[in-house]
Amino acid sequence: VSEPAAASVDIGARLEAFALPGLPIIAPGDDLAALVKASLVRAELVLRDGDVIVVASKLVSRAEDRFLDLGTVEPTPRARHLAKITGHDPRHVEAILRESVAVSRVTRNVLIVRHRRGFVVANAGLDFSNAQPPRAIGRGPWVLALPVDPDASAARLRAELGVAVVISDSFGRPFRLGSVGVAIGAAGLPALHDHAGRRDLHGRPLEHTATALADQVAATADLVAGQADEARGAILIRGLRFAAETRYTAQDLIRPKDQDLYA
Amino acid sequence: VSEPAAASVDIGARLEAFALPGLPIIAPGDDLAALVKASLVRAELVLRDGDVIVVASKLVSRAEDRFLDLGTVEPTPRARHLAKITGHDPRHVEAILRESVAVSRVTRNVLIVRHRRGFVVANAGLDFSNAQPPRAIGRGPWVLALPVDPDASAARLRAELGVAVVISDSFGRPFRLGSVGVAIGAAGLPALHDHAGRRDLHGRPLEHTATALADQVAATADLVAGQADEARGAILIRGLRFAAETRYTAQDLIRPKDQDLYA
Repeated sequence: VSEPAAASVDIGARLEAFALPGLPIIAPGDDLAALVKASLVRAELVLRDGDVIVVASKLVSRAEDRFLDLGTVEPTPRARHLAKITGHDPRHVEAILRESVAVSRVTRNVLIVRHRRGFVVANAGLDFSNAQPPRAIGRGPWVLALPVDPDASAARLRAELGVAVVISDSFGRPFRLGSVGVAIGAAGLPALHDHAGRRDLHGRPLEHTATALADQVAATADLVAGQADEARGAILIRGLRFAAETRYTAQDLIRPKDQDLYA
Repeated sequence: VSEPAAASVDIGARLEAFALPGLPIIAPGDDLAALVKASLVRAELVLRDGDVIVVASKLVSRAEDRFLDLGTVEPTPRARHLAKITGHDPRHVEAILRESVAVSRVTRNVLIVRHRRGFVVANAGLDFSNAQPPRAIGRGPWVLALPVDPDASAARLRAELGVAVVISDSFGRPFRLGSVGVAIGAAGLPALHDHAGRRDLHGRPLEHTATALADQVAATADLVAGQADEARGAILIRGLRFAAETRYTAQDLIRPKDQDLYA
């Protein structure tokens, strides 16, 4: 994939970000695109070129019914072993392992894995917060898994909304404390924006050659959303300038394993 | 340190970010606060509570004369050894080691270190881009080092400007491709924003307990700035809501070594 145009904000332009008002708590089967459109109408907003709609992954997971009743999960011996190390519920660990392709780090209270979509994330993103389904049938406890294919979810939303879409989550990271917004799904924007060929003030080729544009969009949305507040689960980012046609996805942000010195 | 208030955007409010116009290329000894103030006057902007001024670390480094002429640097045997592995200029490696407390990873083309301020960063942030001083005396090549104490630089700017200040840089990271804006200095905002005690929709205590607010502010600024464009080296972020009095600094974003599974 290659991107022609600079991805940034026009000289003199402002970047704006605001939460779409009045979204309900999402239930399985809800039509997210329709709910976003209804919110835009309420806010008297008309989407335009360069707009990005950022949807928190929790909303997508709820719409896609990614609730999992741990009461139905039978842990394997490996899950029981890792649960002893971490102190996690063995059924939680089993559910995490089923979402993962490898364990990255394990210690007391911490289980960091490579999710099968390539994200290195604590607990495979299987979160207890806001994980109770609207009509609980089993005993629980429930966890909410990441969307099955967040790039596909983003592409579907983009097709309905007509603008770029980012599915965001909030991840911890090595070296630095605190979580930050990241893109786990993206469609319609240069998720990884290549600066190769650009030069500095002295005509010297730039050393940093790519920016994680979609991650920075997700971080901006997270500033507006705060955490765990599903009433702010969809954020409009306005003012970016990028080539509208792009084949980049959030998968393009995954560092290949053979280039990752920390895997 | 503890923070009383939620750090996010008011319901109904917008987050805005824009580049301050007309900043010159910064030279050693320049008064950054005065230049920012002059730019605000030109833009007819009056700073208000909740505003954050994000200044790219390059501007601070230039003002603080952190140019280093590698022609004056004599590499040690250790620097020569690491230079053979990485393919870097041995004088560059020597300069990197002098800025660092430990080597994190070393391989072809890559030297990731723990900077003496705690940041884990490629080449200790010693960058060749835009590193030529305005009045070159030596032969070069030149590199530009990070500010000596970016939190102190942020605190000085904050004292002059009267609003929160973030000194930003752009770092790569494990697992994910592309650089993202991070805070290497901060004053006057909850750089690490603690959510402990907040509850989810079901009254369950939240699992993620802290957000890297200052890093997300830096990421937002980076979206507006693009890269290596010093004309956009200062960004105003408007619309955040946080307790104005805070003792947090960017040092509060450094994960303690004994809690870092990837060091």
